[in-house]
Amino acid sequence: MPVPTGDRLSALRALMSSDEYKIDAFLIPSEDAHQSEYIADCDKRRYWISGFTGSAGYAIVSSKEAALFTDGRYFLQASEQLDNNWTLMKQGLPNVPTWQEYLVKNLPNESRIGVDPTLITAADAHLLSESLKTVNSTLVPVHANPVDKVWSDRPGAPQDVVITHPVKFSGKSHVDKLNDVRKYIQSKDAYGVVVSALDEIAWLFNLRGSDVECNPVFYSYAIITESEAILYVEAAKITDGVRQHLGDSVTLKPYNAIFDDLKQFGEKLTATEKKLITNPRTSLAIEVAAGQTNIKEERSYITDAKGIKNEAELKGMRDCHMRDAAALVHYFAWLEKQLKAGVALDEVDGADRLEKFRAEQGDYVGLSFDTISSTGANGAIIHYKPEKGACKTIDIKQIYLCDSGGQYKDGTTDVTRTYHFDQPTDYEKRCFTRVLQGHIAVDAAVFPQGTTGYLLDPFARHALWKDGLDFRHGTGHGVGSFLNVHEGPHGIGVRIAYNDTPLAAGMTVTDEPGYYEDGKFGIRIENTLIVRQAQTPHNFGDRGYLGFEHVTLVPIGLNLIDLDLLSPDEKKWVNDYHAEILQKIGPLVENDPDAVAWLKRETTPI
Amino acid sequence: MPVPTGDRLSALRALMSSDEYKIDAFLIPSEDAHQSEYIADCDKRRYWISGFTGSAGYAIVSSKEAALFTDGRYFLQASEQLDNNWTLMKQGLPNVPTWQEYLVKNLPNESRIGVDPTLITAADAHLLSESLKTVNSTLVPVHANPVDKVWSDRPGAPQDVVITHPVKFSGKSHVDKLNDVRKYIQSKDAYGVVVSALDEIAWLFNLRGSDVECNPVFYSYAIITESEAILYVEAAKITDGVRQHLGDSVTLKPYNAIFDDLKQFGEKLTATEKKLITNPRTSLAIEVAAGQTNIKEERSYITDAKGIKNEAELKGMRDCHMRDAAALVHYFAWLEKQLKAGVALDEVDGADRLEKFRAEQGDYVGLSFDTISSTGANGAIIHYKPEKGACKTIDIKQIYLCDSGGQYKDGTTDVTRTYHFDQPTDYEKRCFTRVLQGHIAVDAAVFPQGTTGYLLDPFARHALWKDGLDFRHGTGHGVGSFLNVHEGPHGIGVRIAYNDTPLAAGMTVTDEPGYYEDGKFGIRIENTLIVRQAQTPHNFGDRGYLGFEHVTLVPIGLNLIDLDLLSPDEKKWVNDYHAEILQKIGPLVENDPDAVAWLKRETTPI
Repeated sequence: MPVPTGDRLSALRALMSSDEYKIDAFLIPSEDAHQSEYIADCDKRRYWISGFTGSAGYAIVSSKEAALFTDGRYFLQASEQLDNNWTLMKQGLPNVPTWQEYLVKNLPNESRIGVDPTLITAADAHLLSESLKTVNSTLVPVHANPVDKVWSDRPGAPQDVVITHPVKFSGKSHVDKLNDVRKYIQSKDAYGVVVSALDEIAWLFNLRGSDVECNPVFYSYAIITESEAILYVEAAKITDGVRQHLGDSVTLKPYNAIFDDLKQFGEKLTATEKKLITNPRTSLAIEVAAGQTNIKEERSYITDAKGIKNEAELKGMRDCHMRDAAALVHYFAWLEKQLKAGVALDEVDGADRLEKFRAEQGDYVGLSFDTISSTGANGAIIHYKPEKGACKTIDIKQIYLCDSGGQYKDGTTDVTRTYHFDQPTDYEKRCFTRVLQGHIAVDAAVFPQGTTGYLLDPFARHALWKDGLDFRHGTGHGVGSFLNVHEGPHGIGVRIAYNDTPLAAGMTVTDEPGYYEDGKFGIRIENTLIVRQAQTPHNFGDRGYLGFEHVTLVPIGLNLIDLDLLSPDEKKWVNDYHAEILQKIGPLVENDPDAVAWLKRETTPI
Repeated sequence: MPVPTGDRLSALRALMSSDEYKIDAFLIPSEDAHQSEYIADCDKRRYWISGFTGSAGYAIVSSKEAALFTDGRYFLQASEQLDNNWTLMKQGLPNVPTWQEYLVKNLPNESRIGVDPTLITAADAHLLSESLKTVNSTLVPVHANPVDKVWSDRPGAPQDVVITHPVKFSGKSHVDKLNDVRKYIQSKDAYGVVVSALDEIAWLFNLRGSDVECNPVFYSYAIITESEAILYVEAAKITDGVRQHLGDSVTLKPYNAIFDDLKQFGEKLTATEKKLITNPRTSLAIEVAAGQTNIKEERSYITDAKGIKNEAELKGMRDCHMRDAAALVHYFAWLEKQLKAGVALDEVDGADRLEKFRAEQGDYVGLSFDTISSTGANGAIIHYKPEKGACKTIDIKQIYLCDSGGQYKDGTTDVTRTYHFDQPTDYEKRCFTRVLQGHIAVDAAVFPQGTTGYLLDPFARHALWKDGLDFRHGTGHGVGSFLNVHEGPHGIGVRIAYNDTPLAAGMTVTDEPGYYEDGKFGIRIENTLIVRQAQTPHNFGDRGYLGFEHVTLVPIGLNLIDLDLLSPDEKKWVNDYHAEILQKIGPLVENDPDAVAWLKRETTPI
């Protein structure tokens, strides 16, 4: 049922036309001030004003209209959630403008278009301003977000305390990381670096938080210069332990103090050639505070450094994936037993039981994203989240897809398995096996240094393509080290941006091809991989060759494999993988006879 | 042995410093005024001034230095051919500047750098001028090429007559093609199109020539407008038959008359919004003549249209590749017999005999490029051309690589086979088989519409990569229809430009992975393929799926295959391919018992 938004829109429009704002339209993006993919409740402005809960969307409220822009994944959901105050703009369909085109073409010329400058990147704001010029409209950065003013029951900002991330897991002290950043600053002949992405700050200072569900980050900014390291974070979040950890080398200031500091830095820099380095995710608010001429936008050094895991982080990834695999083996064995016994379980029951098995593992902190526990047709909804009451009972006669992950103190996991607990059809087996062949082709790939995930992406699809099948998402993303489950800068996929970053030893990346039939079933096989030096007999061109190590150790549903499709090498891959799982995970589940039996059966050589 | 270039360079430098030129450096590209890959003798200025005969290279002569820039394919050859007046600049190695960087960094600031404006594209000239500005140097278009003035025995321009290419082979009349171009001009709201690439002109007017060895083109320009089609070509080349073929719809003018015409068109266009469309291969001289503001550079419509072969052209490709395969089977059977009988044959003897076998085939016109007939280490010189006296005797104990092709009235061929007529080593077999696996992976690939050759390129390398091996050239290029053996716009390779053109049904493309060990051997397996609709059981996303048809039908050396490396699917591919060859080519060689026996043996199932 749609949330009624009439009163909310009236209040917002009254404020927009008031002397304080005098704006003809207001932009309400989905992101927070740190361009986070997942956001805290207090930042869910677009959700509150529109009622639409999907992760991707853009709202524009003008004096006459309210428009919500979203993509094909969310057309159905948005049309159900929006009330009739809203126009749904289906992005990607012919003759539907983008939100930027809408501002130029659908609003009157000479409009004043307000935006919260913390919620739009400087780069996007400049592009938008240029296109608005063509109709004499203006982008107006507002000083206080009018949605926040009319959102009477807006949740407060999260106040949980920050915890330290010890060097035994991070592998490098924050002092050493800060020194690395300073070497980078020197190499660029710059004054300093502004850090606004929450996972970059958590990584840099070896701190973790819980301000955003499933993402162990905390609201903060940072500025690093050759002489200073300032962490902007509310004092209430900082314990004595954290103070002690940070030591003398880090100055603590309140979260919003960054804007005054940037102004002061900017005034100092205007007379010099030195710049503050930002990156493409930096907000307009930061640029405005420092002064545009004092800013130099660069590819993020910290994201690049964070992307290459050190030995301690790699050990943590291996270790936590073992425990995570044990939880999954307990769960799938339990689930199969329940279903075969005729117990009625819905998708949320499954997800909850899996969470309990994970919580029993050492160093467990929480989920790394909402568990996708889906039966039959729900598996074809790629970002499905089951809700109690609205979800389905798990049907033993249909494919079950489970995409889940955990946050552990030593690492982050992300794994998808697709099982059929009864008898799959030949067609389901063929589709599953094509996905598996793509999964194996990526896992087993060897490639020279310099190769990007853009170029490896077809390996994940080649077997599906032979049947005229494909999937409409990327093949893989970086995984944080007890940090965000999605991280860059690299990835495997069709987005040309993935051609900018070669895969490098120490990176983590998922390998998750899939196949989906709307209204029928979804298949995805996802492991987390580590990029590492490959042992090749030769080294042509002295470039060095890379390959992958899979840290996910959960059996691949044997009864879904069409053996006739697999080559001997592919069968060997499956058998080697299952032997490794039995050897490594068997000892971890030996207290659970059902799990032991299930694991043995599911790792039988084919 | 290097050609002595001291006197040539002295004469050129004297002219450069004379009052007529007053330039500090002169650029000598490899290309002709049409940016042709292969050029007539009179255009081989870079060869004449430097002595280096490779197809790719760039010479820069300044008052003090003479530098020759070339890529990895030619490092060895260039170092052998250049005398000590020249510095070899190995492009792609660390710390070696590109020729553009060299002009900025290695020459004095404020240099006047001369270039023949017909020999540099307008686009390259603009980029170069911009970077020269940073050091206050200037690009100076010269009116008469100073190399031509000092080249006393320069060959005259080719004067051979043009022939017509009948519709039974071209599949479409030149009148219909001109109408298509006019529809394109209308769609762009332009005045007309300037055509300067020789193969575009030959294709558009259904004419062929012999001005460039192996390339059936003739020196010409063309301008197409809504009302006119002007072909600029020397009258001596045009027979009555060609005049009759062209009819009233085409106006003939002398070759160089285009520059005056462009000036007149330019003056007329300056007052209007209409432009003349050029493309990225158009010379600076054309842009200067028409006036930069009257020109609009676009991706070449004619190259795109030419790249998609029609049914008549595809039939011609299939037909001529059958005859071509028969010639190759005769040749390889003959060669093996000679070598086994201990007859001493050098690489040129081999190439000459192959040419004779080709010449016996119907509709044969000539070679499509110089035959690479190479034994042992010469096979590692990727663009090797054996020369009588300087080449090697074919060694039965070493790998023999033969890359060759023919021009036939119904099509153009390009094929490489690698054989060992005695007993290859295990290592040679392993390398050959890795190349074969890459060849098969491309040949057997199925992919959705929209996929580019950039994305398929890793398929050709994946098996080599597993051993830490690779090759330093592209995987494939388009092949003309009784036209240039290399043509665009598409290709399979690591150059990002190949990501601009999706493969499309009707395109031709070669599949030619290789592996080369300097000083030891070279391996390449090359077929010509046609892109066509694939028969897939499904059509996910309604995009349509494409695959390849191989038109080359020559056995792949069985004794070089390491059977243990091949998957059952790969073995089946080899057996299916060989069965097809035996069936289609067997009847064509039945007058030659040696060829029949060789063909039967070489197509034995594995």
